[in-house]
Amino acid sequence: MKNFNYYTPTEIVFGNESESQTAHLIRRYGGTKVLVHYGGKSAERSGLLDELCRQLDAEGIRYVKLGGVVSNPRLSKVYEGIELCRREKVDFILAVGGGSVIDSAKAIAYGLAYEGDVWDFFEGKAKAERCYPVGTVLTIPAAGSEMSCSCVITNEDGSKKRAYDDDLSRPKFAVMNPERTYSLPAYQTACGVVDIMMHTMERYFSQDDDMTLTDELAEALLRTVKNSIYKVMASPENYRHRAQIMWAGSLAHNGLTGCGTTGDFATHMLEHELSALFDVAHGAGLAALWGSWARYVLKENVSRFVRFAVNVMGVPNDFTDPEGTALAGIEAMERFYRDLSMPTSISGLIGRDVTDDEIRLMAEKCSLGNTCTIGNFKKLDKQDMEAIYRMAR
Amino acid sequence: MKNFNYYTPTEIVFGNESESQTAHLIRRYGGTKVLVHYGGKSAERSGLLDELCRQLDAEGIRYVKLGGVVSNPRLSKVYEGIELCRREKVDFILAVGGGSVIDSAKAIAYGLAYEGDVWDFFEGKAKAERCYPVGTVLTIPAAGSEMSCSCVITNEDGSKKRAYDDDLSRPKFAVMNPERTYSLPAYQTACGVVDIMMHTMERYFSQDDDMTLTDELAEALLRTVKNSIYKVMASPENYRHRAQIMWAGSLAHNGLTGCGTTGDFATHMLEHELSALFDVAHGAGLAALWGSWARYVLKENVSRFVRFAVNVMGVPNDFTDPEGTALAGIEAMERFYRDLSMPTSISGLIGRDVTDDEIRLMAEKCSLGNTCTIGNFKKLDKQDMEAIYRMAR
Repeated sequence: MKNFNYYTPTEIVFGNESESQTAHLIRRYGGTKVLVHYGGKSAERSGLLDELCRQLDAEGIRYVKLGGVVSNPRLSKVYEGIELCRREKVDFILAVGGGSVIDSAKAIAYGLAYEGDVWDFFEGKAKAERCYPVGTVLTIPAAGSEMSCSCVITNEDGSKKRAYDDDLSRPKFAVMNPERTYSLPAYQTACGVVDIMMHTMERYFSQDDDMTLTDELAEALLRTVKNSIYKVMASPENYRHRAQIMWAGSLAHNGLTGCGTTGDFATHMLEHELSALFDVAHGAGLAALWGSWARYVLKENVSRFVRFAVNVMGVPNDFTDPEGTALAGIEAMERFYRDLSMPTSISGLIGRDVTDDEIRLMAEKCSLGNTCTIGNFKKLDKQDMEAIYRMAR
Repeated sequence: MKNFNYYTPTEIVFGNESESQTAHLIRRYGGTKVLVHYGGKSAERSGLLDELCRQLDAEGIRYVKLGGVVSNPRLSKVYEGIELCRREKVDFILAVGGGSVIDSAKAIAYGLAYEGDVWDFFEGKAKAERCYPVGTVLTIPAAGSEMSCSCVITNEDGSKKRAYDDDLSRPKFAVMNPERTYSLPAYQTACGVVDIMMHTMERYFSQDDDMTLTDELAEALLRTVKNSIYKVMASPENYRHRAQIMWAGSLAHNGLTGCGTTGDFATHMLEHELSALFDVAHGAGLAALWGSWARYVLKENVSRFVRFAVNVMGVPNDFTDPEGTALAGIEAMERFYRDLSMPTSISGLIGRDVTDDEIRLMAEKCSLGNTCTIGNFKKLDKQDMEAIYRMAR
C-alpha cells in the first residue's frame, strides 16, 4: 500500500431544507459579496435561485448572478466570470448546480486570485498559490466536485479538455438536499451514477491492491449505488435512494475510496477526448468506453477483476476459471449500463460510426502527441489508446 | 434517515516516515510556540519525542514539553498544561500519543482560550467559543480523537468522567505511521480494536436504519478490523494490517459511519462509569458490557441484530429464527472478544465480583441521579442501567 494524504475540509450540510442554511454558511466563511453561478433554466424554474437570492437579501449579503454554464464547462464563461467578479469586487463564489457549474466556479475562483491567464494552471504552466472561497448548492450528484480538489475546463480554442487539481479549490461547504435531484431527467441521473461509480472504480482498479479497508469501502459504495439507481429509476422521488446516490457522489471523489492506492484514471482520460470532440455527456462517454478498457487490461491483474465481479457485481465465483469469472463481471457491468440506457460503444454514444481519423485524433490528443502514457493498472501509450477506442467503436 | 452535517477538516498524513512532516505541518497551521504533550515513557524510549524535538529545533519552532498523561486523562494535568501554556505563551498544542493524550491536549487548548474554568464545558455550564489549534502524532489507534470533535476528561474530584464535543477541537492535522504501533502491547492493541469497532457499532445500532450507504460502509470497516486484528496478533509488525486498524480508528469516529443515523452510545456511557470507578482500560470495559447491552435491547429491533450477525460476524442466516440468528451474532462477537483476551463480564474486567452498591452507584451517576436516560436504540433509565450492569456482572 502507498502512503497517502487525506484532506476533506468541506463542511457538508445534508438533507431536506438544507439549502435554507446557505446564506448563513456564506457569512460564516467570510463572504460579503457573492457571485451566484449557475447553469441553465432549471435552477430558475425550480425556484431555487430565487430562494437563495431572497436568503442573501435577508442576510444583507450583496450578490451578482452569472448563469449559462454548460456541461463540459467552457473557458470563455470562466473568463466572463473573472471579469464580472473583478468589476463587482466579489469575494465568494456560490455554485448552484452540478459538477460543471462547480468546476466553472472553481476556475473563476482561481483566476480571480491570479494576475495571469487562468488557463496557465490547466496547461501546467503555473501552480495556483491562492483561490477565492467557493461554496456549493448541489443539484446534480455526479462529478463529486463539491468535495473534490478537481476542476475540469474545456478550452473551445482547440477543444482541449483539461483538469487542474489543487486542495486550494476544495469548496468551503456543500449544501445537499436529495429532493433537489427529483426533477433530474433519467438520462442525466444515469450519467451521474456512471460517473460516481467510475470515480470509485478508477481508484479500485489499482495494482497496489493491499489497502483492504479502502477496497471494502469502495465495494460497499459501488453496491449501494448500483442498488439505489434501480429504485430511483422505478420511482424518481424516492428520497432515501436519491440520498444514497447523492452522498455516494461526494464520497466517491473526495479521496476516501483511494486512500493507499495509486488509481488508474485511464478511462477518464480517454473519455475527456470523447466529450471534447463530440460534446457528449461525460457519464455516457465513460460507459461507452469502460468495458473495452477492462477487456484490454484484464490480464494485468485477473484476480482484481475477479474480486470486482464477485464482491460488486454479485457474479458467482468459478474458482476453476478466474478469467471467465472476471469477464462475467465486465459483462454484468455492461448489462447494468444498458439497464440504465447508457451506451456501451462509441457508436451507441454518438449515434453514428466513429471514423479512423477521429480515433487517431483522439489518441493523438490523449497522448499529448505521443509524448505521454495514461493509466496505472496498465500504462497505455498512443497505440494502446487507439486499440481501446477501436474495441469500443 | 436523518439530516446530517459532516465536517472533517483534519489533514491526514499517513504512512511510514510521515512523522518527518510534523514540524512543517505545525508551521503551516500557524504554530510558533508549541506544547509537546505526551504520556509515559514509551514516547521517550522509542526516540519519537527526541526526533520531533530535533525537527522543531531545525524548523526554528520553540517548544516546551509536558508528559505524564495517563489513560482516562485527568483534569489536574489539563490545569497544569493550561498554566504552563499561559506562562510560556504557547500557541499550538502537539499531542504525541493516543486518545488520552489527544483529549488532554484538546482540553488544554479549550482552557487556554477561555477565562473561566475549563471544566465548565464538561459540566454543560458553558460552550466554548474558541480553541487553540491542536495537531497530533498518533501512536495508539483506538479513540479516533485525532479526527473527532470529542474530548473526554476525568475529574478526580468525584471521579467524574465527562465528554465535551465541539468541532472547534478537531485537530488541524494527524500524522499516522503504522510502524509506531508495532510496539504496542497486545492488551492495548486489543483494547484499541474494541474501541474502534464500538465507535462504529454505537452508530450502526440505530433505529433510523435506512441510510444504506452508511450501513454498508460501517460493515466494511468492522469486517476489515475484525480480520486485521488476527493478523496483527499473529505478527505484531505486520505493516499492512496495522495500517488497516490505524486508518479504521480514524474513520470510525470522524462521523463517516454515522451519517444519517442517530447513534446509540449507551455502551460508551455505561462504560465511562466503569472506568471512572475502577480506572480500567476503556476498550476492555466496552467488551465487558456490550454483550449484556445487546441482549437487553435485542427485541427493540431484531432485524438489525440479524443484519449485524450475517454481514459483520459471518453467521449463517436462519431465516426461520431471526432471534436465534441475532443471538448467534452476539455470541460470535463475545467469542471474538475472548480471542482478543478481552473480558466479557465486569468480574473478568476488574478481577473480582462487582458489588450491588457499586452497581447502584454507577447507575446513579450514569443517570445523573436518575434524571436522564441514555441511548437511542432503546432509551435506558436508571433501572435499565442497573439491569445491564447486573447482567454483565
